[in-house]
Amino acid sequence: MSAATDPNVFPDAPERWEESPSTTEAFKALDRATATDVFLKLPSDDQYRLLEDMPPGERRLWVRVLAPDDAADLIQYAPEDERAALLAYLDPSTQREVRALATYAEDDAGGLMSPRFAALRAEMTVDEAIHYLRRKARDGVETIYTAYVLDGEQRLVGVVSFRELFSAQASAPVRDVMRPALTVTEDLDQEQVARIIAQHDLLAVPVVDAQGRMKGIVTVDDVVDVVNEEATEDIQKLGGMEALDDSYLNTGFFALLKKRAGWLAILFVGEMLTASAMSVFQDEIARAVVLALFVPLIISSGGNSGSQASSLIMRAIALGEVHFTDFWHIIRRELLSGLCLGMILGAVAIARIYVWQSLFHSYDHVALLALTISLALVGVVTTGTLCGAALPMLLKRIGLDPATASTPMVATLVDVTGLVIYFGVASVLLRGTLL
Amino acid sequence: MSAATDPNVFPDAPERWEESPSTTEAFKALDRATATDVFLKLPSDDQYRLLEDMPPGERRLWVRVLAPDDAADLIQYAPEDERAALLAYLDPSTQREVRALATYAEDDAGGLMSPRFAALRAEMTVDEAIHYLRRKARDGVETIYTAYVLDGEQRLVGVVSFRELFSAQASAPVRDVMRPALTVTEDLDQEQVARIIAQHDLLAVPVVDAQGRMKGIVTVDDVVDVVNEEATEDIQKLGGMEALDDSYLNTGFFALLKKRAGWLAILFVGEMLTASAMSVFQDEIARAVVLALFVPLIISSGGNSGSQASSLIMRAIALGEVHFTDFWHIIRRELLSGLCLGMILGAVAIARIYVWQSLFHSYDHVALLALTISLALVGVVTTGTLCGAALPMLLKRIGLDPATASTPMVATLVDVTGLVIYFGVASVLLRGTLL
Repeated sequence: MSAATDPNVFPDAPERWEESPSTTEAFKALDRATATDVFLKLPSDDQYRLLEDMPPGERRLWVRVLAPDDAADLIQYAPEDERAALLAYLDPSTQREVRALATYAEDDAGGLMSPRFAALRAEMTVDEAIHYLRRKARDGVETIYTAYVLDGEQRLVGVVSFRELFSAQASAPVRDVMRPALTVTEDLDQEQVARIIAQHDLLAVPVVDAQGRMKGIVTVDDVVDVVNEEATEDIQKLGGMEALDDSYLNTGFFALLKKRAGWLAILFVGEMLTASAMSVFQDEIARAVVLALFVPLIISSGGNSGSQASSLIMRAIALGEVHFTDFWHIIRRELLSGLCLGMILGAVAIARIYVWQSLFHSYDHVALLALTISLALVGVVTTGTLCGAALPMLLKRIGLDPATASTPMVATLVDVTGLVIYFGVASVLLRGTLL
Repeated sequence: MSAATDPNVFPDAPERWEESPSTTEAFKALDRATATDVFLKLPSDDQYRLLEDMPPGERRLWVRVLAPDDAADLIQYAPEDERAALLAYLDPSTQREVRALATYAEDDAGGLMSPRFAALRAEMTVDEAIHYLRRKARDGVETIYTAYVLDGEQRLVGVVSFRELFSAQASAPVRDVMRPALTVTEDLDQEQVARIIAQHDLLAVPVVDAQGRMKGIVTVDDVVDVVNEEATEDIQKLGGMEALDDSYLNTGFFALLKKRAGWLAILFVGEMLTASAMSVFQDEIARAVVLALFVPLIISSGGNSGSQASSLIMRAIALGEVHFTDFWHIIRRELLSGLCLGMILGAVAIARIYVWQSLFHSYDHVALLALTISLALVGVVTTGTLCGAALPMLLKRIGLDPATASTPMVATLVDVTGLVIYFGVASVLLRGTLL
């Protein structure tokens, strides 16, 4: 079997970009075994769309192949009035499991977990445990590679990996092989669950209730989806809109419009302050129209530097790299960065003004004008950088999502203050000459 | 053991935000076993910083606890002149493995893989395979939970999970239990590797060379890091800067400045076109200063709607949800979205102008002015939305990173065209009245 001809080998740089297969069509063409495999791996929204096209008899078959946690996700995705019908397709014991899971918020540990894990008793021998897991391997447990040791009240007392059991003495009690378990509570946010699994390189983490009773496990493959989901939400929020509930192409036109129009209108109202700020300086503009020409250049530089700072800091917070105790360290550092970046842009602006002057003799009082523009740039870029860095940290501090400090929001804040700084510098420096 | 008192239980909403422990200090306080555990889980940069502070004797001990793939990462992170010394701490056979790994690009499958996997022969019985894996469980293989079936030339002929072996008949040959393997090539980009593992819910994926010979495995826990890393890069690029090589706090001041100043200066030079565009309309501004007042409001609305569209589409491309064949579908959809969003903002603007007029009698020819502003908004927001949607797709098409279509870049493009649209609409509608 050579890599070049094996259809399972992904080529060097797969041009997935070219193909855009329709899920439903592709699905119908598959044989039963492959179709099951594919169906199990689809996200709940795609599973639901496939089921919609099926007759009820076939629908029952497909709902029944799902593990309880996936069935719960599917049912939570389905419209309210179809949930009972979907639930009824399941056997009574799975129905109970799914009902219990469906009470958890979708993005908590409880909403992410599977209730089917391999449980052991501390008194079992290693050999008994291995035999028990061997039987479990044929059942529907999520993983046999990590087993959980419970006491008589279902409380978690330890954890043991299959590998550890396998390399331990056959006659030793499980008690001697198990380790204390790292656990998460049912209502822990999925982002935190993902971070714990990733940090500790776990295959699965057990979920316990307030009494320490084990409720289920969250496995590492769910975590990859969570990490992707959270990054998508952050990127959409940073872009200045509400996060979508579904993929871009699966979101309806009006749902998408709603997610965008809200923030766009809020930012627009905020940005109206720029018109008010500029009207304060209306007389200055009338006397020196040249000042108006540089308005977009100056305020956009503030917005751009703010965008850099807010995406840097927001992401560092999301990854847990930056904490609120770093606040003043970061502010000092960003203050210095802002000053340096502002001076760099100020220098470019001076060069630009003098080149234009030598080519077109565009400006009166060229030295004063260049000084005004470059000083304003230093002020605006520093303000933008500080705003962009501080806002995500302050939002996080008061319990809001730092990604709400979106690029457009920082830009809006900085546009208004930028105008005040620019015209303020101009009124001082140009009084008696241009003004 | 109750969840409330167990130190291993993460509380409801852990205020990790409050603490900011220094890695080195925390590390020194740990006992040997825990320290090893922590050291193995640290990223290469933190491992390197810890090693720097140690005497050579201790350093050897710590380098030797690393698996070959982690040792290769550490050595690739270290400065050129220290690499040979670090390599020399390892035993000769591990040195060979690490040297082979270090030849791969860091973000290819080859750079991510571990060369230590569990290999079986197709002729073995299930029982022999289980016994063999039991011995391997004590060795340094990355995982025993997936085993790879190789022929005499080290070519991969199939894969079998431990769970499958465990529930199969003991006397059956491995050949009858194994499945065809999904593989990746050595030089496949890590983002693609991550997507394949996530899509197929794999614990590990085998890496093969062009001849189908097995070279190593990439495990799911590496994938979580890759997914996070790629999202971080995208967010930083979207913010209008080069992606950092390290975390925010671990990046030096000047390195950070360099990553930001480059794009900021390029965008600044691009934005200079706004000054040129506005100077074309200098006479109009001189005659009707009121036009200048709305410049920031109008161009920022284009930038904000462009920011929404570019982050939406960029992310959908990164997740493989959107393909180039969807180009015209997306353009039509975004054109319609842009028109709707523009009309919404136009309506808000008309309301604002009439409220101001009734309060302050601010404007002459108020109806014409309101019409100009709102028509310009429709044009600018539509342009912004289209630019933001098209640019990431076009960049991807020509082989560039779609995240280069950063919010500031889209805003810069839209600022210039926005001014032309605004003053164009104004010259037509206000000719003979305000102009």
